[in-house]
Order: sequence, then C-alpha cells, then structure tokens
Amino acid sequence: WIYGHHAVVGALMNKNRVKYEVYCTSEAEKKLKGEVKLENADVITINKTRDEIDLLLKGISNHQGICLRVEKLQTPQLSDFIKNLNDQKSIIFLLDQLDDPQNVGAIFRSALAFNIDGIILTNSNSVTENSFLAKAASSAIDKVPFTKIQNISSCIKILKDNGYWIYGLDMKAKSSITDIKFPNKTVFVLGSENKGMRKITASLCDESLKIKMSHNLESLNVSNAAAIMMFYFSNRT
Amino acid sequence: WIYGHHAVVGALMNKNRVKYEVYCTSEAEKKLKGEVKLENADVITINKTRDEIDLLLKGISNHQGICLRVEKLQTPQLSDFIKNLNDQKSIIFLLDQLDDPQNVGAIFRSALAFNIDGIILTNSNSVTENSFLAKAASSAIDKVPFTKIQNISSCIKILKDNGYWIYGLDMKAKSSITDIKFPNKTVFVLGSENKGMRKITASLCDESLKIKMSHNLESLNVSNAAAIMMFYFSNRT
Repeated sequence: WIYGHHAVVGALMNKNRVKYEVYCTSEAEKKLKGEVKLENADVITINKTRDEIDLLLKGISNHQGICLRVEKLQTPQLSDFIKNLNDQKSIIFLLDQLDDPQNVGAIFRSALAFNIDGIILTNSNSVTENSFLAKAASSAIDKVPFTKIQNISSCIKILKDNGYWIYGLDMKAKSSITDIKFPNKTVFVLGSENKGMRKITASLCDESLKIKMSHNLESLNVSNAAAIMMFYFSNRT
Repeated sequence: WIYGHHAVVGALMNKNRVKYEVYCTSEAEKKLKGEVKLENADVITINKTRDEIDLLLKGISNHQGICLRVEKLQTPQLSDFIKNLNDQKSIIFLLDQLDDPQNVGAIFRSALAFNIDGIILTNSNSVTENSFLAKAASSAIDKVPFTKIQNISSCIKILKDNGYWIYGLDMKAKSSITDIKFPNKTVFVLGSENKGMRKITASLCDESLKIKMSHNLESLNVSNAAAIMMFYFSNRT
C-alpha cells in the first residue's frame, strides 16, 4: 500500500510502477484529480470513507483519505543504475544498513529537493520499500532513482571503476565537508543510526569526512546529517 | 522512563532533573560508569537482564540494556527562559505544533550539535516530553534549554520586545536563508509536519524565509529543514 496524497500522486505518475486500485474519499479524489490525469495512470478509483481506509490500512490513520495498491518497484542492476546516470557529473548517496523507514524516507525526500542523482541501499539489515518508507518519502521514492546491492565491497569497487570518488561520513574524521572541493562524480556513504559506519565500509572509502559540530561527542540523526550534506553540496560554489 | 546509553547519561548529568533508579545490565553499567560518577548523581543502580528491561519498558527493545526512572523536566516561564540566554547574541528555534517525537528529538540533537541557544515548544497539539523524544534526542533534551508556551502570539510579542527578530520557515517565501545577514538575536519558527506554518503564526513573523530547493513543489522533513538551518547558521561567515 502507498498512502497519503503526495505519495499516491508520485506513484501514479511513475511509469515504472505497477499499480492497481486507488481507494479514496470523494474529497481526496477531487484533490487527486487536480494533479493527476487518472485516465493516463491506468488505475481504477473506488470511493471509500475514511473509516474504511483505516481498516484497509490496518490502523494507519495519517492516510489523508487516500491509498493505492501497488507492486514494489523493480530495482535495476548496479551497472544499469550507473549507466542511467550522467557520466560527467553525478552525486550518489550509499546508505549502509539503515533500518528506520522514517529516516530513509526523509533522505529520499531531501535527495529529491537537492537534486541528488541516485540512492543505493544495502539489502541486508536494511529497511525494504514499504508503506511507511513511501509515506515518509512524500513522493520521492517514485522520483529518485535507486537500487539495492548485496555486497558493499563489490559495489564500491564498481563505483570506483566508473570514476566515482567515495567519501564516508565519520564524525571522527579530520576533514569536514566544508574543507573539500568535491569532484564531479561523488559518492557519500552513510552508516547505520545505531552503529555508525562499519569498519569494513570505512576501509573501502577513499576519504572520510565529518560535519563540523560544536559538541564533538555527539552525532546527528542520520537523515539530518544527509540533509545537511545534500544542502551543502547543492549550494556550494 | 529514559532509555538508551546516551539519553541516560544526559539525564544523570542534568542537575535539574529529578531521577530515581537506574535499571541496567552489568555490561551497560560498566559502560555507564566509564562516563558518569554515579555517586554524584544521587541514584541507585539495580541490575536487570535485557529481558527484564524489555518488560519494564513494555516492549521497547532499543534500550541498549539501560533505563532510568525520572520526573519530567520542569520548564521555566518564558521570561526566565529569555533571561537565562545571552542578551547580546542568541538563536532560538520555536516549534509550532510539532507532534512527532522522532522529529522533535532529532531537532534537539541538531540544536546541541550546532550550539543553538534554546528551543520553545507550543503546548497544544505538540509532542510532550516522553521516552521516545528523549531517546531520539540522544542526550540533548537534558542539555539544550527549552520551555513550553501556551500562546504563540504573546510569546512572539515578548520575544520581539526582548530584541529578537522573528523568521518563519515557509517554502513559498521569496528570500532564502542564504540571502540573509542574520541579526545577533534571531528566532526561527517552524510549522508542523503536515500543515506547515499556520497563517496566524506566519502573520506574526517579521520575515519569511525558504530553503532553496530544486523542486519547488516539495517540502522537506521538518527535522531535516531544521538541521540545514542550524548547520547553515553555525557555519555562516
């Protein structure tokens, strides 16, 4: 299920998304039709009350009167994912074992806002594409290219072979993001919320960077750290 | 209950916090004693297994083997809160009806990281200080000065009377945060996740600002927006 106005609009406008019925209140349907030509989206619309949608979504209440039954997105092979990006200038975020849908959703949302070219997720110990992630991402899960990988070592090797420079975010690093002139093809790696960057992952990066903070002992919420890096990257001169 | 290593350490080191027993595994106790002199914290320590702590916290599992029974923090009157800040140079974030503990916790965490002087929360339709907020804040709920207010109109009037300039974050504003030379006494107002800034609140601000994004239609997760503003503010020249 995808629920919430923005997330449903994003899914309906994504040609690569397999979708079935939209369930919505008449009020939500009116708002939807203001933004999407439903005849092009190849779905049927079924009117429901808010309470009936509560039941469909098994108790989720922040659905704004609308939900859509879908298939999960098919993710491309890493080589195809890379081929689809701009070969001269691309920024990728690689999320290593992030398991909180609200964080990962927020990262997709910021990636869309700041023109990040793509996101790579690890398969193991990570959040999968689900309803909560799609809601937190607002429509970004259907707009930001992403893929999933089995093995981070071989993934980083392939990225390096394709000309990317790999930065890992590590709050103990010497250099800060504001010290660096970034190359045109850049990958930022973020480690999990609880454990930070894994040693194996850190050893694969070309360079570690921190976000300079006044309290060195503290770390940031991972989606906040990602948002700062994306904002900084999109505003650098 | 406050749970998780960092949150418990923060609470134990906060002299203004009323605290009772620490329940912890022997492993978590060892880690705790490396950071806090328990004899100064005026609490007793009771050893428990992880399963027993699961039960105490009614199913919360990410407690890292440690929790602390506490009273909620007493928040000062707004006038006292302002008196305790630097009268020459202070930055305050005012959170208007934010109700997600994970977002508000992350905002506290970023506020600590970037030396924000204080946070003001509205009483109505807002998250209250609870276990989830304290965990998401890592230890910042016990380190960043904050207070709660009943009425946003009178709050903003008092802030203005005390020499603060009030900015509201509004993604439809003309000016961006990067266009502004900020005064020494600044308040940033953030509206709720779902509805954004209320009209009444926007009308009370001296000026509206946006975070420049490539996709104008999208908004950011509110804690991500706050993190970007705090980072930008602490790094401005």
